[in-house]
Parts: sequence; structure tokens; C-alpha cells
Amino acid sequence: MVDKLIERIIELQNPACVGLDTDFNYLPEEMKRDVSTFEEVSERIAEFNMNIIDKISDIVPSVKVQVAYYEMYGHAGMQAFEYTLNYARGRGLIVIADCKRNDIGSTAGCYSKAYLGKTDINGKKTRAFAADMLTVNGYLGYDGIKPFIEDVTAHDKSIFALVKTSNPSSGEFQNLKLENGKFIYEQMGELVQEWGKTTVGKYGYSEVGAVVGATHPEEAARLRKQMPNTFFLIPGYGAQGGSAEMLKVCFDKRGLGGVVNSSRGIICAYKNPQYSGMTYSEAARAACIDMQQDLLGAIGKMGR
Amino acid sequence: MVDKLIERIIELQNPACVGLDTDFNYLPEEMKRDVSTFEEVSERIAEFNMNIIDKISDIVPSVKVQVAYYEMYGHAGMQAFEYTLNYARGRGLIVIADCKRNDIGSTAGCYSKAYLGKTDINGKKTRAFAADMLTVNGYLGYDGIKPFIEDVTAHDKSIFALVKTSNPSSGEFQNLKLENGKFIYEQMGELVQEWGKTTVGKYGYSEVGAVVGATHPEEAARLRKQMPNTFFLIPGYGAQGGSAEMLKVCFDKRGLGGVVNSSRGIICAYKNPQYSGMTYSEAARAACIDMQQDLLGAIGKMGR
Repeated sequence: MVDKLIERIIELQNPACVGLDTDFNYLPEEMKRDVSTFEEVSERIAEFNMNIIDKISDIVPSVKVQVAYYEMYGHAGMQAFEYTLNYARGRGLIVIADCKRNDIGSTAGCYSKAYLGKTDINGKKTRAFAADMLTVNGYLGYDGIKPFIEDVTAHDKSIFALVKTSNPSSGEFQNLKLENGKFIYEQMGELVQEWGKTTVGKYGYSEVGAVVGATHPEEAARLRKQMPNTFFLIPGYGAQGGSAEMLKVCFDKRGLGGVVNSSRGIICAYKNPQYSGMTYSEAARAACIDMQQDLLGAIGKMGR
Repeated sequence: MVDKLIERIIELQNPACVGLDTDFNYLPEEMKRDVSTFEEVSERIAEFNMNIIDKISDIVPSVKVQVAYYEMYGHAGMQAFEYTLNYARGRGLIVIADCKRNDIGSTAGCYSKAYLGKTDINGKKTRAFAADMLTVNGYLGYDGIKPFIEDVTAHDKSIFALVKTSNPSSGEFQNLKLENGKFIYEQMGELVQEWGKTTVGKYGYSEVGAVVGATHPEEAARLRKQMPNTFFLIPGYGAQGGSAEMLKVCFDKRGLGGVVNSSRGIICAYKNPQYSGMTYSEAARAACIDMQQDLLGAIGKMGR
């Protein structure tokens, strides 16, 4: 799936990813009125997402749907999550389920079926949460990752494993130094590069990507060098303080190597005075175009 | 919540936890017949769990519900998960949601609301997946854990962070040595002990526990020494190869310090020739009693 994402990035000249971290509180007042149950919330969130997706699917290659914002509304929220994934895929977007799942082998296998593969019921195979790509956490080592890699290969999907996260205290653990001279995040990066080596596609990137925060340019630059075959999912742009200048180190000479996520900067753009007078979906589109220009200005043309 | 769990462990003289990792394929043939949709699967799983819970709630203090086995059946599966948590709590069991959730601050906050706290909708607060305790992954550092600790304190809950997991390849990452002489799992253990220090209860254990696999007794013994205030959730007993003799190092002189999980060994006990002629719930109860005797034999009386 990483080749498809790269092709779409080149086609649209846009390495952006829109984060549908749709907290109910982000919705315009008129959409929040008279809502009190998880079912009602979930319908409104799905409607909000649909309208955003309709306005951006011709200019953005991918969306990232952060499951935590749906889980907090119970199983009804998960229905909105399911619906959003399907709707976005139906509109031709490549859909990243941001779930950071992790467990031991057999249980990791269940997560993999849930998001990337299929669940078998008496011989009938059905998809649960139909994503194209999934974020995972590699703390448990290879046998917690292997089930995902099997589904990635069988169903043309991708995963992104956490390497260097965008949050302020990520260094508390990830930037400790190992006896071998590497930082923990570098060591995780090396494992991720290794786990992906049998799935390298035609652009030189594998189906096992890495999450590398835009907020840590020094670490990102080291990782880009050490992980030449690893595609990056780059959170932290915009609201979290990462800029296009900071994250351009994640890209190779062809302007390829990652997708840059922005969540609040796009879905809450209608609250930004810069986009006043627009509906939330118009503002989201305008913010996507501004983000694209900003990224292109720093990274340059994609696929050159 | 750790004090309540310890009191119930002493009362029942049982440090066991029953893992409701209820794969549909584990159900007896007659329960699987004529089932083809996620909704039907989820009803049968909930029914199976209810019958097990009814048969064990007077002899076992806690259950651990592994969410991956529900997520793979989509939002309908999550409804069965929700139902199972509520049913078990209604029967007086302390319920551990095994979700290994992890994310940056604001998103970790959503997960925390989903499992430990409450979700606000226009001022009305509702619980989504009502657990007592939740497993988390500390790879992102303190600001990914803080939102959980806030809810733990506000709502009398607990969390368990992954430290040394029970899977065969856990050492690939967790047993690498740091420059400071500690293994990665020890360093994570130290962070976990530190994160919990303001929540130590009357038995000397904090609300921030650690997941420590029964399959790695050497590491478990080191961690017990280094983390005197950290309560352990101990997976890996039974089907994964961990024995009572191997895991007794996790307990202190009072016979306290952890809960030992068994999943397949209990819920699939009806397939074991040892329990032939019993229904699945009778077999689960018999297997719980055998497990209790096995643990008591190795650890000794609890609360002495």
C-alpha cells in the first residue's frame, strides 16, 4: 500500500494527511445542539467527517483516523469510526487507522484481523474496521509485529511503528542511550527497518513505516539516514508546534519519504480567523491548500 | 482500586484473574451453529462470558477482558466487550480492560475517559467502557501516562504499564542494556515505580502497576526487588508456559504483590480431558479451583 500512497502523493503533489481526531467538542455549535447520547454524538461526528472528506478527497491523498476519539463514545463511537473508514476509502482516500495497537502474538493477530485482515466466522471472512494502514507499538518485539506483517503482505496494507513520538516528554524514555551507543528511538528504528526489509516496494520504501514526530528535527534527521527504506508518518505539524522547515529532513532527494499529519489545524480551521466566513468543510479545504503550499515550499516538488 | 483488589484477594485466598479472551472459535460447537454475522457472534460471546462469570465470581477476585478479541468483530464486538465489563462488575468482580493503550497527552486523555473516566456530552457525563483497571504502554513517556493517572486518582481506578511482557521475543527490545547498566525493561520499571509514587495505598502498592510475564522468572525477580510499591499483572501462566513456581518471585512475604492471569486454561478448560463431562462453565470453575490450589501451593497464604 506504500507504493499506492506514494503514487497518490506524486499525483496530487501533496504529502499531507488529514487527521480526523473528531472530538465532539470540535463540532460547530449548531451540530452539537440537542445531543446527549453516544448514538447521537456518533451520528454527528460521522456527518462532520463525511462533509470534510467530500471537500478534501480530490486534493489530499490520505486521512488518519485517531480511534481514541471514537472509543470514548463507546461502541456507538466505534460504529462512527467504522463508518468513517469506509466512507473515506470509498472516496479514494488511503486510510490510516491510528490505533497504536500492540500485544503478544495471538492477540496481535486479532488486532491485525480487526484493522488490516479479515475475521473468520464459520468460514465466512468479513472485515471489521477496514483500514489501509495501521499504527502499532513495537515494545513487545518481533512476535508482536509478525501477525501484522503477514496481513500487510497478504492484503496489500502497511503499518507504522512508533519510533520517535511528537509529545514533549517522548525523550524521557526514547532518548535514553543504550550500551551500544544508540538511543532507544534509534534502536527501535533499526528494528523497524529490519522488520520491513522483505516488503520494500518500487520507490524503495517498505510496508513497515515509522512514526517520527515533526517536533524533533534532530532525531528525525538521524532516523532518515539510518532508515533509508522506511516511510514516515509525521505527526506534530501545526497545533503541536512542528513546522514544514523542521520536518523537511524526513524527505529524500525526490521529495518522498513521508506523510505529514495535521488534525486540529484542518478540522478546526473554521475557528481560525484566517478562514472566517467559511463553513467548516470549506475552511478545512482552504487549510489543506495552505498546508500543501507550506509543505511544498519546504520540501519541494514530489517525485522529481 | 489496588487496595480493593488486594482485599478481595485476601478474602478469597486467590490471586488469580480469569482472562476473557473469548475468541468465537473457543465456543462449544452448539453455540457456534448458524452464526454468520458480527452481531450474532457478539451475542454468543457475551452469553458465553456471562455463564463463565456466573460460575466463578464467588471464587475469583478479578477478570481481565482482552479487547483485541472483541475489536475483531467490529462495533458489534465492542458492544459485547462493553456488556462483559458491565456484567462482570455487576457480579462484584474487579475488571481489568486489557487494551495496552498509548498515545500523546490529549489523545491518551480520550482513552482514559473511554475506560477509566467519563465522557462529557454537553455537560452530561457518561461512562463508555466501564473498567476498574486498564493496561497501558509507556513508550511515549510521562505525558502519555499522566491523563490516566489523573483519572485513576479522581475515580479510584488503576493502570498496569507494560514492563516485561510474556511473549518469546520480548527480550529483542526489552532486554537490551542501557548505558546506565540497566536493561530497558528495568528502566521502564523504574519509570513505572516513579509514576505511581503519589498513589501508594495501605498495603504499600500504588495504582500504577506493571505487566510482568510469568514466563521470565529471572527478570520478574529483579523487578520485584526494584519495584517494591508496584503491583504486578502477571500473564503467561498455563497455556504460555509459565508455572506457579516460576511466578512466585513476584510476591512479597505476605503473599501479596500481583494477580496471575489465565485465559485459555480457564475458558477452554471444557476441552481438557481432565474436566470431561462438565459444561464449559463448570469446567471453568473447576479449572479456577485447581489454579488457586496451584498458586497457593507455591506462593502460600495471602495476607499472612
